[in-house]
Amino acid sequence: MIIILKENTTAQELNTLAEMVKSHGVTPHITEGVHQTIMGLVGDTTRIDIESLSQLKIVEAVRRIQEPFKNANRKFHPMDTVITVGDAVIGGNSLTLIAGPCSVESEEQIISVARDVKNSGAKILRGGAFKPRTSPYAFQGMREEGIKLLLEAKKDTGLPIVTEIMDLSQLDLFDEIDIIQVGARNMQNFELLKQLGRSGKPVLLKRGLASTYQELLMSAEYIMAFGNDQVILCERGVRTFETYTRNTLDISAVPALKKLSHLPVVIDPSHAAGIADFVSPLSMAAVAAGADGLMIEVHNDPSKAKCDGPQSLTPESFDKLAKKLTSLKKIMQED
Amino acid sequence: MIIILKENTTAQELNTLAEMVKSHGVTPHITEGVHQTIMGLVGDTTRIDIESLSQLKIVEAVRRIQEPFKNANRKFHPMDTVITVGDAVIGGNSLTLIAGPCSVESEEQIISVARDVKNSGAKILRGGAFKPRTSPYAFQGMREEGIKLLLEAKKDTGLPIVTEIMDLSQLDLFDEIDIIQVGARNMQNFELLKQLGRSGKPVLLKRGLASTYQELLMSAEYIMAFGNDQVILCERGVRTFETYTRNTLDISAVPALKKLSHLPVVIDPSHAAGIADFVSPLSMAAVAAGADGLMIEVHNDPSKAKCDGPQSLTPESFDKLAKKLTSLKKIMQED
Amino acid sequence: MIIILKENTTAQELNTLAEMVKSHGVTPHITEGVHQTIMGLVGDTTRIDIESLSQLKIVEAVRRIQEPFKNANRKFHPMDTVITVGDAVIGGNSLTLIAGPCSVESEEQIISVARDVKNSGAKILRGGAFKPRTSPYAFQGMREEGIKLLLEAKKDTGLPIVTEIMDLSQLDLFDEIDIIQVGARNMQNFELLKQLGRSGKPVLLKRGLASTYQELLMSAEYIMAFGNDQVILCERGVRTFETYTRNTLDISAVPALKKLSHLPVVIDPSHAAGIADFVSPLSMAAVAAGADGLMIEVHNDPSKAKCDGPQSLTPESFDKLAKKLTSLKKIMQED
Amino acid sequence: MIIILKENTTAQELNTLAEMVKSHGVTPHITEGVHQTIMGLVGDTTRIDIESLSQLKIVEAVRRIQEPFKNANRKFHPMDTVITVGDAVIGGNSLTLIAGPCSVESEEQIISVARDVKNSGAKILRGGAFKPRTSPYAFQGMREEGIKLLLEAKKDTGLPIVTEIMDLSQLDLFDEIDIIQVGARNMQNFELLKQLGRSGKPVLLKRGLASTYQELLMSAEYIMAFGNDQVILCERGVRTFETYTRNTLDISAVPALKKLSHLPVVIDPSHAAGIADFVSPLSMAAVAAGADGLMIEVHNDPSKAKCDGPQSLTPESFDKLAKKLTSLKKIMQED
Repeated sequence: MIIILKENTTAQELNTLAEMVKSHGVTPHITEGVHQTIMGLVGDTTRIDIESLSQLKIVEAVRRIQEPFKNANRKFHPMDTVITVGDAVIGGNSLTLIAGPCSVESEEQIISVARDVKNSGAKILRGGAFKPRTSPYAFQGMREEGIKLLLEAKKDTGLPIVTEIMDLSQLDLFDEIDIIQVGARNMQNFELLKQLGRSGKPVLLKRGLASTYQELLMSAEYIMAFGNDQVILCERGVRTFETYTRNTLDISAVPALKKLSHLPVVIDPSHAAGIADFVSPLSMAAVAAGADGLMIEVHNDPSKAKCDGPQSLTPESFDKLAKKLTSLKKIMQED
Repeated sequence: MIIILKENTTAQELNTLAEMVKSHGVTPHITEGVHQTIMGLVGDTTRIDIESLSQLKIVEAVRRIQEPFKNANRKFHPMDTVITVGDAVIGGNSLTLIAGPCSVESEEQIISVARDVKNSGAKILRGGAFKPRTSPYAFQGMREEGIKLLLEAKKDTGLPIVTEIMDLSQLDLFDEIDIIQVGARNMQNFELLKQLGRSGKPVLLKRGLASTYQELLMSAEYIMAFGNDQVILCERGVRTFETYTRNTLDISAVPALKKLSHLPVVIDPSHAAGIADFVSPLSMAAVAAGADGLMIEVHNDPSKAKCDGPQSLTPESFDKLAKKLTSLKKIMQED
Repeated sequence: MIIILKENTTAQELNTLAEMVKSHGVTPHITEGVHQTIMGLVGDTTRIDIESLSQLKIVEAVRRIQEPFKNANRKFHPMDTVITVGDAVIGGNSLTLIAGPCSVESEEQIISVARDVKNSGAKILRGGAFKPRTSPYAFQGMREEGIKLLLEAKKDTGLPIVTEIMDLSQLDLFDEIDIIQVGARNMQNFELLKQLGRSGKPVLLKRGLASTYQELLMSAEYIMAFGNDQVILCERGVRTFETYTRNTLDISAVPALKKLSHLPVVIDPSHAAGIADFVSPLSMAAVAAGADGLMIEVHNDPSKAKCDGPQSLTPESFDKLAKKLTSLKKIMQED
Repeated sequence: MIIILKENTTAQELNTLAEMVKSHGVTPHITEGVHQTIMGLVGDTTRIDIESLSQLKIVEAVRRIQEPFKNANRKFHPMDTVITVGDAVIGGNSLTLIAGPCSVESEEQIISVARDVKNSGAKILRGGAFKPRTSPYAFQGMREEGIKLLLEAKKDTGLPIVTEIMDLSQLDLFDEIDIIQVGARNMQNFELLKQLGRSGKPVLLKRGLASTYQELLMSAEYIMAFGNDQVILCERGVRTFETYTRNTLDISAVPALKKLSHLPVVIDPSHAAGIADFVSPLSMAAVAAGADGLMIEVHNDPSKAKCDGPQSLTPESFDKLAKKLTSLKKIMQED
């Protein structure tokens, strides 16, 4: 961390600041220039509050050199984190397909899709029970009933389940769910993150629509700081000025997050594009960029889906895509 | 709502679609072109799910003409909503100053600031008890204790209180709080919005960092649809590529939200800029643009504030600003 | 095109509008609702000025249904455009590698890099002679001398050349250049686009940092409307709130532009990321998403490059990447 | 400037780097930490190429402390720059209104509008002769003829003229034009900036749609580095995810640019909003925030304007706004 001091800082003020930072366990190094004096802080600055420093009268600016996250940081944990749920493995050198409908709609639907995606190679079943919808007048998901149907599908196919939690009060219902999904809108719902940290259950954490890599990793850090290191990062598109696609898939998130962190990185091409035709090219791109997995919406009858129909694949097109991905993964593993 | 149909839609398919929309209580009007057929829907389309329509095989695109919100819409409620809490009035042709520290830190601090801002003309006291912080290692607020101290300050000064809720589980603690604030990160925490709708208490709803006006109004609609029409909209800066300021204050939100909705619009210049020097010009700009109120951070000793110190005004500079705002408001009311 | 009319439009006003649009050769179709009347325009609306319509007193809003570009539109030209320069072919089902240094720096450098990238499979040599630099104090390129050295490298290796023009006044110097590059900052330099349209030479048109797909295609339309259909579209990253990477590569531009247009689409992963480590994963992603080509910075000594060194590959790493891309392309062509 | 070095940098490598920076006239100060070594550069770093440094093998990152612009920097030039054209003064403690139609359309139109805006207090006439239009099929301006008509209006009213240049080749036509406008799309047309620097004529430089304050000031620096310090900065809205307004007016640009630079700052509320109703509130906001001037579109018959009609004021509404602005300016000058 570097503190840039204002021009007319006195030696005494500088000294007081130096003592203060020492009390936080870091060592100050001072560089005096003609116009500018700089104090470099050496040591673990993770717990130093950059805003507290910035507000001091003698401080012009503070710049971080080290990342403010520690548990999620590859520098302190060079090996890939590998998360195992049932027969599925996420992270390391594997490619994990997570598939299923946007919303659970009926027992018949979820079991039919679950069997189909399992046959095509999916290792985890996704499906929404609690649905965050922009409009209060739109379908809000089957809720408790949806969770039950997902567990039926798990019993039927053996596939572990990932589904989204929308509020802490729903946590008890997630007992038998394998991976709890935190949606983009909840990425900075810090009370929820703390509780999921205490729960110890694998968490799939989606990047917020306008959240930086660092903010995503700080949210992962919340979960990890409260005792849970089973975190899967998920890029699902960010908000930009381009409106042709629903969001803009940030493909660089794959190499970037894998460089910054040891946590597995999964891509959701369905929500990013919002256009079924683009799911296949974006899935290929994600794996070619090094993603550990994909989370893809598959619906047995996309034209009748209760939400996000336009972005869902049919089981047939998912099967075709899965085959192409397998060929691609082989090339990727050749290095 | 307009449905643009694919080129080779048959007359029968068109007919089926027409019957379907009629069953939702709206009337279809068809325009057949050489390359394109268009179906206009006439009637109340608020409850029609645009995504369900988009996914139909024969549909190329769907465009909304009417806004998807109704309770919050000025078209159906032309008069300004005016919200009264204690002696404070928000909305209509008044200018309401909300002021106080970012965080409650001690009884002495909050009472001292409350008295100061009251003397300068503030009508409502703000102060954070539960603080959303990006880092799990940063100060998280005094929580329950902070709420108690805010109520002490209310007793002392008579000022009504606005403070932020971070999770539904905290709701009981907000019984005597006058206005519940929903932070930018929780703007689409729909379970929270529903419950606040049921609570009937005034809600100050902050716009999310990357949320459109329409999404903000849809979140207000959630609260209103569940029975609560006491909603104050708050613009606090959006996220852009510019990093010199913490966020980019979207000043056009004032005329835009007031055109689209009858709800009062308040500006938070402190969080938008993140720089104390800019609070005064941005406050003046907000009132000149027609804002109903301002929410400003004031700290008796900004250089020792536990959070957001750099953006807080001193009581002296707040007092000076309040005087300038009063002169400005006079001009604004002359029309 | 759909015109949404204001609520109290009279029959006579509506009639006048209908006559006006007929005079532009399109047919109006009117849908009258209780609150809203809509006029659909059927026919070629490319030349109708949406802003002229919007400003009419009786008009509330105008929405386009058809794209405003025609020459660049796949709907009117379903077959892929294929551009041939020397032995290189861009578009169709091929994968064209364009490689070379950011800046031409010396005869030795450009010829050495040209030979290296040719041996690795590059079909076109890139190299900057005129360099757009944010700072007036930074190296501005070798200019005329740089063009000469590029032509030396062409003579030596037979590789066709692509290099950037910065101003119309430089056009004469580009006589023997094979493909003229228009940089992101000049994407809407309309006078330049018109002249390049008249020139008939292949143009590589980079997407602006904050330009939509439609704006990129409208700039291509400028070139095409002035008589030149040899346009290559290039995505090179857009500007977002994320600052870890220099720009955010919009990988969805590949399927989106190929759906909207018949023009070839090339990706520049070097400028998008600004980090050499990410060039390889982003290149793989681009080809997996269906790109027709890649434009990659390669420098024989990146640590001494006069500009953009951090994002350049060494000839060795380019060679390794080219091999991986060849394996990937094979899978892509299997469908 | 601070150079953050990679972990295993040797003493010798560090020494070589230190010698190199000394050769640029700056003094290196080294801070060695356990994991990280930092080199602070003391002196004038304006001409040091941050990219050249970043690319060195031993360098992890480089951070600027000082701004990279010097001529435009308030630190080196604390007094406001005041620009005088004819009777108009821009900068200092005045408020300058620039008004006129988007496009020059006829002698009658431009003279009529010029007289009207002059009567209402405008000091400078604006009007487009060369019009940058997204579509090649839209009206491109009256070009040479438009310039002539502007000069007629100048003769008639005595108002100095500001109008946009689109290409260097048009420069000769601007001989009698008082202020040359560089549009948002040309903000980084560096060849144009250099030539305008050499011309010595006042330049109104619009901020690009996705350009940072620093980039805008670097473009001003281009003009100033080539000998012309008559630069007026103009904020006209940036591109964000919000589509209700055409662009998002960044009101913080006023205090920010005035803090960073001594150059006058003018706001264009017409282009920012794209909605005539918002021009008045945004104009008031701009002046309340401290802007030196406003550039407003006024058309005698907005519903027949050939471009940008929907955002133009009528002479009557401009007159009303000008009166309100005068009252506001009085308050602003009271401090």
